[in-house]
Amino acid sequence: MTDELRKGLEGVPVAESELSRIDGDAGELVYRGYTIEDLAREARFAEVIYLLWHGHLPDADELVAFEESMAAERTVDDDVMDTVARLAAADENPMAALRTAVSMLSAYDPDADAPASDTEATLRKGRRITAKIPTILAALARQRDGADPVPPREELDHAANFLYMLNGEEPDEVLAETFDMALVLHADHGFNASTFSTIVTASTMSDLHSAVTSAIGTLKGPLHGGANQDVMEMLQEVDASGKDAASWVETALDEDRRIPGFGHRVYDVKDPRAKILGERSKELGEAAGDLRWYEHSTAIEEYMAEEIGLAPNVDFYSASTYYQMGIPVDIYTPIFAMSRASGWIAHAIEYTEDNRLIRPRARYTGPDTRELPPVDER
Amino acid sequence: MTDELRKGLEGVPVAESELSRIDGDAGELVYRGYTIEDLAREARFAEVIYLLWHGHLPDADELVAFEESMAAERTVDDDVMDTVARLAAADENPMAALRTAVSMLSAYDPDADAPASDTEATLRKGRRITAKIPTILAALARQRDGADPVPPREELDHAANFLYMLNGEEPDEVLAETFDMALVLHADHGFNASTFSTIVTASTMSDLHSAVTSAIGTLKGPLHGGANQDVMEMLQEVDASGKDAASWVETALDEDRRIPGFGHRVYDVKDPRAKILGERSKELGEAAGDLRWYEHSTAIEEYMAEEIGLAPNVDFYSASTYYQMGIPVDIYTPIFAMSRASGWIAHAIEYTEDNRLIRPRARYTGPDTRELPPVDER
Repeated sequence: MTDELRKGLEGVPVAESELSRIDGDAGELVYRGYTIEDLAREARFAEVIYLLWHGHLPDADELVAFEESMAAERTVDDDVMDTVARLAAADENPMAALRTAVSMLSAYDPDADAPASDTEATLRKGRRITAKIPTILAALARQRDGADPVPPREELDHAANFLYMLNGEEPDEVLAETFDMALVLHADHGFNASTFSTIVTASTMSDLHSAVTSAIGTLKGPLHGGANQDVMEMLQEVDASGKDAASWVETALDEDRRIPGFGHRVYDVKDPRAKILGERSKELGEAAGDLRWYEHSTAIEEYMAEEIGLAPNVDFYSASTYYQMGIPVDIYTPIFAMSRASGWIAHAIEYTEDNRLIRPRARYTGPDTRELPPVDER
Repeated sequence: MTDELRKGLEGVPVAESELSRIDGDAGELVYRGYTIEDLAREARFAEVIYLLWHGHLPDADELVAFEESMAAERTVDDDVMDTVARLAAADENPMAALRTAVSMLSAYDPDADAPASDTEATLRKGRRITAKIPTILAALARQRDGADPVPPREELDHAANFLYMLNGEEPDEVLAETFDMALVLHADHGFNASTFSTIVTASTMSDLHSAVTSAIGTLKGPLHGGANQDVMEMLQEVDASGKDAASWVETALDEDRRIPGFGHRVYDVKDPRAKILGERSKELGEAAGDLRWYEHSTAIEEYMAEEIGLAPNVDFYSASTYYQMGIPVDIYTPIFAMSRASGWIAHAIEYTEDNRLIRPRARYTGPDTRELPPVDER
């Protein structure tokens, strides 16, 4: 056993996993052997969830049954919806509101008390959590703006139903497909911090609601999920400045500002998800006859590659993609959670099936053992 | 860099910490250099919180100011209290209810949006969270039984006020002191799983409410905080069986039942906290003229030591101590959280002051890269 301090646990393998493989040098990401490029082009999000949770892609019958079972779980209990309304009225941060609402779901889940070793019960809880997150999030986004929540529709798929609940009208096919693809791209990514927090929580054999709640709180941090929102705010600032994007970045770097959406603990080259989203961002710009957001993005990408040697990550191109879809900027990170919940749940199940409590060690650097002085001698 | 799989991270030092030192061979625990025995005997919980958060024991003036600032924060916002009432009505698991309520507190915290790098704001949030957990928990416990919540009283200390809110009457001095001591004993314990989940969440520079919410969900698991409740249920079963405790344990072990409250990842000898709580459990039994729970406990301890070679941990004697204080069995783990919140908050602050994102690696064991078959060919 080495005694070397492993702060951040960078590169430390803490468990085996069959779920996703990342090759940071080659810029490759696969889920259970399928490349992210193939999945983005040929599979819908429901197929990816099924793949992650059940180990194989669903056949046609399995897929229909799976989507129906999820769609039937979209309605959220009145008590939770009431709490969401209060959180909207209190102008709660959307990630914090999602954390509270998902935590509260357990009170109304018929399998809440099943032990973590009951994988079938955990899968039912996983379906319910995954199905209800869009309902919570759409209600929150609408209520902040004074609008009423729009109830879910079972006949729409996961992505289209969310956009319907968010906007009150059915999305066109391009928007629904683009959004579905974004969900596919964000579903899993090894032991990132939020996924790792899922398994730390799950490793005490705690329940799935606890594990997913931990993950949402972890994803909330600006060093993790918060970056896509930061990217969009940067693009808006670039646009408002009237400067060309490259000189804006140059100035920003001179002022020691951090440029969000660049660099990644595991990728040395361009994140394969950024490539796919970048193409989609361009298509949306072309369709709208306004390539501004795409062009600001590529100009920043080129400058960062040439001057700093950093490549964009998934957050960089999800920003302009979501923006051109009309999604409010501060729900980009909750949308990340809407997708990644599928990966969190898959990891919670996989890890606890061969569980080992996660309990590392702190290296003590405090004072030597000493006498305790009474209050009047301190 | 080693590529060795570190499942469970046992023995892996992931950060430096000045907060607590555990010597598992010697059975020693110190907080910032002060032994747990001295702290249990001579310091109150408020002093221990101050020590953990501020690095030194408070002098008389600091202690008064600190306790007053905490006591002023005990009242919980109406929206959160309403959600707690709903959770009580839904018969939610108390740890799950606490997780939801603490998560919801952020919506009403004036410092909720302060960055994690603002340590002063984090300390204010920490005081509020720590002050409000007892209010939430007492309200939950009373409302489950159909009673109304009892509002906090500022002139009582943290321990006495909780017992007052729980029972609707002021505790006598022995109960208040015993409860305070139990809070002192549970305040910190290195990088246990819940504390580690705190720092995983905090390492994305997420907010303190997220970090503490993660920890509550992690502590909820039966491999971590759930054990003190399991111990008490075992003692009740032993008592109801009419057998002597040693033969009950012998039978239980023959039936492959796990005996809760024994063994610990870091202690090879008796947990020093178990020693202190064992003495207190005995005193409570003597005062009540009923040594049953203490005697069942010691008989099980002797049997386990002689036959299995395992020593009791902190959960083993907190069970009979809390039971003899009249505390409902299913809030033993939330009481653990009420104390450990002080340690979680201290670790979140300490870790983020020299932050490094916690992102380990999974060793991929899934399929090699493969073609994606269309739905009708699966």
